[in-house]
Amino acid sequence: MNAASVSESLEQRILSGDVLALARGATLLEAQTAAGRDLLAALFSHTGHAMIVGITGPPGVGKSTLMNQLTKELRSGGQTVGVIAVDPSSPFSHGAILGDRIRMQDHHSDPGVFIRSMATRGRLGGVAPATLEMALLFDAARRDVVLIETVGVGQDEIDIARLADITVVVLVPGLGDDVQAIKAGVMEIADVFAINKADVPGADLLEQEIRAAQSIASAAERADAAPIRRVSAITGQGVAELLSVIRTVFEQRDRHARAENWSHRLREMLRNDLLSALAEADLEHHASQVAAKMEDPYTAVRALRKSLVSGRTGT
Amino acid sequence: MNAASVSESLEQRILSGDVLALARGATLLEAQTAAGRDLLAALFSHTGHAMIVGITGPPGVGKSTLMNQLTKELRSGGQTVGVIAVDPSSPFSHGAILGDRIRMQDHHSDPGVFIRSMATRGRLGGVAPATLEMALLFDAARRDVVLIETVGVGQDEIDIARLADITVVVLVPGLGDDVQAIKAGVMEIADVFAINKADVPGADLLEQEIRAAQSIASAAERADAAPIRRVSAITGQGVAELLSVIRTVFEQRDRHARAENWSHRLREMLRNDLLSALAEADLEHHASQVAAKMEDPYTAVRALRKSLVSGRTGT
Repeated sequence: MNAASVSESLEQRILSGDVLALARGATLLEAQTAAGRDLLAALFSHTGHAMIVGITGPPGVGKSTLMNQLTKELRSGGQTVGVIAVDPSSPFSHGAILGDRIRMQDHHSDPGVFIRSMATRGRLGGVAPATLEMALLFDAARRDVVLIETVGVGQDEIDIARLADITVVVLVPGLGDDVQAIKAGVMEIADVFAINKADVPGADLLEQEIRAAQSIASAAERADAAPIRRVSAITGQGVAELLSVIRTVFEQRDRHARAENWSHRLREMLRNDLLSALAEADLEHHASQVAAKMEDPYTAVRALRKSLVSGRTGT
Repeated sequence: MNAASVSESLEQRILSGDVLALARGATLLEAQTAAGRDLLAALFSHTGHAMIVGITGPPGVGKSTLMNQLTKELRSGGQTVGVIAVDPSSPFSHGAILGDRIRMQDHHSDPGVFIRSMATRGRLGGVAPATLEMALLFDAARRDVVLIETVGVGQDEIDIARLADITVVVLVPGLGDDVQAIKAGVMEIADVFAINKADVPGADLLEQEIRAAQSIASAAERADAAPIRRVSAITGQGVAELLSVIRTVFEQRDRHARAENWSHRLREMLRNDLLSALAEADLEHHASQVAAKMEDPYTAVRALRKSLVSGRTGT
């Protein structure tokens, strides 16, 4: 049995929904090897079945608990779920997150729920393209819904959220001063808002604030302003309705919106690809030159770009 | 007077420390125009004078207050200061930051303190290279010390911190669960630790935890473990000593460390450069193809890479 036939059978097994094969495929992708990429290229034409949902928001708003409830709801409707937890192995993440994640073990023994966490550190390229690749693998493996949970507040997390089909921004009452920040940034990435802890005082105010921020947006944007739903991730109240809204927004997505989404995705993948092609020796040579003021950094970047080009033109 | 001579005189004025010229140079850089890059390329051989210090850490640890105190200390020693506040215009930033920043206005009327904030949103490329360019401009403009303050917890902020000559990680007692995260990430980027609110119970414990994490590192790393200093950013206690430690670490940096730093910097700049060269029309074409499943994403990325190459080879 040669490598090609092993890989072919892995592909077939993934497409048939075999969980062990999916796990093996995920490991191949994580290793960032050519085998992983070849596998995904072969599987790609079978993707497009799953709904990929990014769940994002500030720390402490109950994202993990909500993920757990969404998973429960999806499973009770007979759907298979893939969960990608983007692990915030960045310096300043909150330890509490690990505790939250453990709750997902409610679904530990259910083969209809496949959970994988992605480390953000030690990666040559960006986390966003790697997360997307994992989501596409899950899609090919016949997961009906893929939930991607990001933790943190950086651009990286936003990039990840944008690569999903649908981005759900989770907020809680009492964010207070963050309202201005919400206006500044979330409006562009949120397809659906979930107000968690909806029973806490201030939920009305938060909803008003989101609506006010939406009304500032242009008329064209207002027409398809992101719907807002209140939930209690602890009790599960409102979760079924949230899911139904997510699905409605997803189904309304037209061909144009999907292409636009892919332009974000390709940009991230390309960035990843180009930097991984950079020869370390070249980089170090120019770094020494610049550090010694023998070369200015723009000249160095130009030279590196050329070496990148000549090294890759033939491939 | 033609454009070239205006630019030449701007260059001369910046090199002589003219604050208005510096402000104009900063605006050129922010506009991400060729003029800004040409200016910086011309100024580069005059850089290397300033000490560029990145100040990072989780929200609420008092970074801005500490920046203010460091600035005061530097000014009282007759040094000129440039401050770059990387503005967290990302969705989930904390409004309180804006309040913190206002404190820097203590130095508002002092021409020896030049403050510029960098917006993180709406940028084509990364924030890190743009921040570095600004720091180099400040350096050329005869600022003795450039302080870069980042806010947030994402990879982006870490990338920014790594581009400085020296990275100071600010922590406070009571982070509790974050200790594990500290072990996981901060060790690699911190050149100096500052424990703020050192009078609060738990400062001893925090220092022990940092030292314990350092002792886990290899023997080679232990030899130059990042020094830890306690400060009270509110009262200014310990700030002079912190500054002296920062300077000592900076001065011990050898040629190798500087070259290594430049290899991070060049990588970021190159990433920025490559993506800005990408033709939108090309990207959109392939995105449509992929969205319609006419092409797999890897094939699309390969094609985009080739178009990038052919479009740029001549430049």
